[in-house]
Amino acid sequence: MGYNIYTSVLDLPVSADLAVILTPARFIPEIITQCGKKGIKHAVIESAGFREMGKEGCRVEKDLLAASKRFGIRFIGPNCVGLINTLNGLYVPFIELPSEFKKGNVSVMSQSGGIGLSLAERLNNPGLGLSKFVSMGNKLNMDEADLLAYLIKDPDTAVIYCYLEDFKRGRDFADIALRSSKPVILHKSNTNPLSNIIANSHTAALAVDDKIVDVACTHAGVVRVQSIEEAIFAIKGISMPLLQGKNLAILSRSGGHAVVAADMCATYGFNLPQLHPGILEEAKNHFRAGVIKIGNPMDLGDIFDLNIYSRIVEKIIQQPDIHGIVYIHVSQMVIENEDSIQLIKKLNELSFKYDKPVAIIAEVPLSFQRMLMEKITHPFFMDPIEAFRALALQYRYASFRQKKSHTVKEVAFPLQENAKIWVEEIQQKGRQPLLHEALNLLDGLGIPTAPWKMVTFFSEARKAADKMGYPVVIKAVTPSLLHKSDQGGVTLNIRNVEILEKQWKEIHARFKDIVGIVLQKMIFASREMIVGAKKDPSFGPVVLVGMGGILVEAMQDVSMRLAPVNEDEANEMIDQLRGVKILEAFRGMKAADRHTITQCLGTVSQLMHHFPEIQEIDVNPLIFSDDGNYSMALDARIICSNVTSQ
Amino acid sequence: MGYNIYTSVLDLPVSADLAVILTPARFIPEIITQCGKKGIKHAVIESAGFREMGKEGCRVEKDLLAASKRFGIRFIGPNCVGLINTLNGLYVPFIELPSEFKKGNVSVMSQSGGIGLSLAERLNNPGLGLSKFVSMGNKLNMDEADLLAYLIKDPDTAVIYCYLEDFKRGRDFADIALRSSKPVILHKSNTNPLSNIIANSHTAALAVDDKIVDVACTHAGVVRVQSIEEAIFAIKGISMPLLQGKNLAILSRSGGHAVVAADMCATYGFNLPQLHPGILEEAKNHFRAGVIKIGNPMDLGDIFDLNIYSRIVEKIIQQPDIHGIVYIHVSQMVIENEDSIQLIKKLNELSFKYDKPVAIIAEVPLSFQRMLMEKITHPFFMDPIEAFRALALQYRYASFRQKKSHTVKEVAFPLQENAKIWVEEIQQKGRQPLLHEALNLLDGLGIPTAPWKMVTFFSEARKAADKMGYPVVIKAVTPSLLHKSDQGGVTLNIRNVEILEKQWKEIHARFKDIVGIVLQKMIFASREMIVGAKKDPSFGPVVLVGMGGILVEAMQDVSMRLAPVNEDEANEMIDQLRGVKILEAFRGMKAADRHTITQCLGTVSQLMHHFPEIQEIDVNPLIFSDDGNYSMALDARIICSNVTSQ
Repeated sequence: MGYNIYTSVLDLPVSADLAVILTPARFIPEIITQCGKKGIKHAVIESAGFREMGKEGCRVEKDLLAASKRFGIRFIGPNCVGLINTLNGLYVPFIELPSEFKKGNVSVMSQSGGIGLSLAERLNNPGLGLSKFVSMGNKLNMDEADLLAYLIKDPDTAVIYCYLEDFKRGRDFADIALRSSKPVILHKSNTNPLSNIIANSHTAALAVDDKIVDVACTHAGVVRVQSIEEAIFAIKGISMPLLQGKNLAILSRSGGHAVVAADMCATYGFNLPQLHPGILEEAKNHFRAGVIKIGNPMDLGDIFDLNIYSRIVEKIIQQPDIHGIVYIHVSQMVIENEDSIQLIKKLNELSFKYDKPVAIIAEVPLSFQRMLMEKITHPFFMDPIEAFRALALQYRYASFRQKKSHTVKEVAFPLQENAKIWVEEIQQKGRQPLLHEALNLLDGLGIPTAPWKMVTFFSEARKAADKMGYPVVIKAVTPSLLHKSDQGGVTLNIRNVEILEKQWKEIHARFKDIVGIVLQKMIFASREMIVGAKKDPSFGPVVLVGMGGILVEAMQDVSMRLAPVNEDEANEMIDQLRGVKILEAFRGMKAADRHTITQCLGTVSQLMHHFPEIQEIDVNPLIFSDDGNYSMALDARIICSNVTSQ
Repeated sequence: MGYNIYTSVLDLPVSADLAVILTPARFIPEIITQCGKKGIKHAVIESAGFREMGKEGCRVEKDLLAASKRFGIRFIGPNCVGLINTLNGLYVPFIELPSEFKKGNVSVMSQSGGIGLSLAERLNNPGLGLSKFVSMGNKLNMDEADLLAYLIKDPDTAVIYCYLEDFKRGRDFADIALRSSKPVILHKSNTNPLSNIIANSHTAALAVDDKIVDVACTHAGVVRVQSIEEAIFAIKGISMPLLQGKNLAILSRSGGHAVVAADMCATYGFNLPQLHPGILEEAKNHFRAGVIKIGNPMDLGDIFDLNIYSRIVEKIIQQPDIHGIVYIHVSQMVIENEDSIQLIKKLNELSFKYDKPVAIIAEVPLSFQRMLMEKITHPFFMDPIEAFRALALQYRYASFRQKKSHTVKEVAFPLQENAKIWVEEIQQKGRQPLLHEALNLLDGLGIPTAPWKMVTFFSEARKAADKMGYPVVIKAVTPSLLHKSDQGGVTLNIRNVEILEKQWKEIHARFKDIVGIVLQKMIFASREMIVGAKKDPSFGPVVLVGMGGILVEAMQDVSMRLAPVNEDEANEMIDQLRGVKILEAFRGMKAADRHTITQCLGTVSQLMHHFPEIQEIDVNPLIFSDDGNYSMALDARIICSNVTSQ
């Protein structure tokens, strides 16, 4: 075809902006070295055969990294199909593509070339289109955080779709997304043991705790989707003006579709407020047979002039408490096709004029749907459920944006200095903190604990019990136990000094390495929660709240967030629990003191955030008195790093 | 157009098989009378304006029913678009349709003409097509049970899709579906307050408890869907050979799609067993670059000859523990189009040859998808998630079919005679059963109860307490209370005779209408359940089991079935509870005696089934000892009909 072929990069007559490499893996370190010598600073490595193929691949990978580092070369891949920029016509994938992709403002960054190209293909849809495409492959040099940061800055990108099989820099990705002014849609796969093996052999991806991916998305306002289909719904949703609330009006030419749409409103958490009587009256004036009652949803089956539809929609969209409109266009008659196209165009105009979404569903024969695909320049939907899923995904993003724009109440951490001293002491001791040390930290941080005292002699124990009043609890403090109650280290509900003495002796006989006894006031309460935190390898500290009590714990009613959390977030976490209503006045009990939970969540999360030495915290149980007067922690466990583990 | 027009049915020169009526509602009773006089026995009434439009409509409805009854006329509607039979060309809807619908073996019965026609339109899809269509409207004469029975018998119908906004004869519908040899797909809308109003004005539909609709579907093997889209997935799924188990093999030309498909396997509860080493070896022999690891899912990205694909699929489909195959066809290259079509045809053949489903996903450009729609005669999918949803819906049906073919263990009801005597006594007394009477019934039915005695004098109480041993409980038996513990009618944990006497006096002072006291042994147990039953207006008796204890009840962890249930069904109900694992050996407690629960569920359900006088039963709590040795009911409440309610 008139182009020269060279057998070495060094033979090139000039340098280049970009090297695209597709040779067997073992030759690539040398080719990168040649690129470096030739002054080429950017590469796309498409070949597979690295880490995902085992030991030999890992060795080649090491050489590749060394070569690229030596010359400061940034590269995409390996094990990918590379880049596309529809605006300047750069297409480097090694596979034949059917034609150019439709131009648009959606950029795609994908750990799988196949998924990325499928998504790009489906952007060939009214109102959508592709801007930049990058297949990330093994992410050996440029990873998801680098590319996300790039696309957020890119002026030709308005919406970012990201497909990942693992995270290389999860917390960085989340923090970059959090600061983004552009919507980020994440399709994170490889969520379970069935996919872990194939994902590892596909792009060398490792498994991440999938619940924490959800938590990170909530944190960063990333819209998570589970399929390509759902990604397209999300993109369509976000391409409409954003919802400022959850109130919709539904208009339909078929009563049945209106009923189904009303069901979906409820399923997706939207409301259907009443329409102004004036609007209803006007619609009614156009009715022919007068056999349909009118409201919201509005069944337009009795109006046959489509011009009237847009007039009704314009009235409704101006009603202040209506935040968006769903219009189900049912039409079987060919003679209506031209009017239908005009109506849909008009509704799109109204949507942008009044800055409220109008989701249009074309319940029409396939042939007319295809015609609409040609003639309409904004997204529309093929089924009401698509529209509701799109609006629900959009609302998730819109409400995150709204929330982000408010000033939020930070959780105070005034006692950080106490924590610092505590952590330093544990580090000096070089061992995991014992029960009394964990309780000491809670006290130092202002988290209420049940009255307790660390004692080593029985005389002390007797004095302490007299002072706090029976019944009491004793808990063995031993390095070997780290106070697991199911191993006999705890005796509950001791009612008098005789029983105390007996139990004291028994517990000392049971544990040879006993350091002392925590004597604690026995507290009775029907309601318990757990507060905990741990460090995730991809996303760092994560904080958790759950309903407690052994029977309730079996139901795994928990809610998580990335640490630190502020008071609003802590309240959100609690509200997400299925069992939250028992914290209100419930079956004769007074409302629980909720502030203790939010304070405990905030403090624990700040602790994890500021002190990387702390690996894990469990405050369990946190109890709430039936009379609503007090709430306090009864037990705590803390695991640190850089100490001997016992 | 050369046809005569008559102004009265009486003027017709001959009689007719069917009258199709579309006049204002008020004229219809007279027209039906004319039909009757003319010997016309069947009608479709398309007009609206009856019950759904209020009082005047109700009056017309009454006249219509009287007229049709007088002449024995069966009719469809009113308020509907009528019938279609694609096979003989009968099309009666009043709206213009684009053309004839594609012929096929799916029949549609829909309470909404709009939804029914949308569904029929979407049957214009490879492998699908419409047989009969009926829009049911207000179901004034022919209802969902009549039409379902008709379509089950219809030789031209293989699959039945049904859209309902309410049930006129819910239990009949479920029982007819249960006996059906054809799959029934139900889209029941009008599930919540937002849709209730519009559904009522649309087809005069009333709300039904939506959870009980789910329960009825489970009972009858009806596949419930929530949208037209999902109905199409279900129809596609059921059009494939049925799964005999949950083991799939996934083949994909893209590693990313394989990872996502493996995730979906987990989401929808499928497994991915290992493939025989011989099969893997054979596939590997065809690899070109050797840069892909092979397993299940199988990434075929390294094989470029499509003929080899069908050979590999044929090997896999013969592996006995593989029940179905998902094949994701990714192809962007136009030169592959012809080979792709041949491959898809070949895979369809293999599916029917080996009687196992092969779900094909065409991840191809839109233009090629359209070509496939023309050339392929079996269903295929546009997105992996569609295929998995179709297989999951199909599996629900297939496993119901399998289960139905097994002989099931009925729950014995040997003590029915005791129940009969009890019910007769209550009916004679003419009042709601009191606590001791309810406990008597449980005893009579062999459901274990904690030791109890009905006493009226303190001397009796003391003697009974001495005999059963302290601690004891006392419960006031009064018609006004029907033993609600939160009104002070119960005193727990009475430890000796002095407290018993004091509490005896207090409880007598509190309730003036006291009939006696139930004295009961105080039983301590960590685990509680509730068993209950009630009568649903549409579906008759429904039985329920749930995790108990006030904190756990807040989480509404319950499972329901239509009564009666056999032992398998009772076990299924228990297994569906989120908290089921606490019934196993749990945190030091022994496994709970599960047989008591299944026996209690079976007995309560038989009781409801055989004795329509019983409206509601609550056995709450049913407790399980920590040592696993016993389980027993502590309390019961029974509500009867035909008695004065107090």
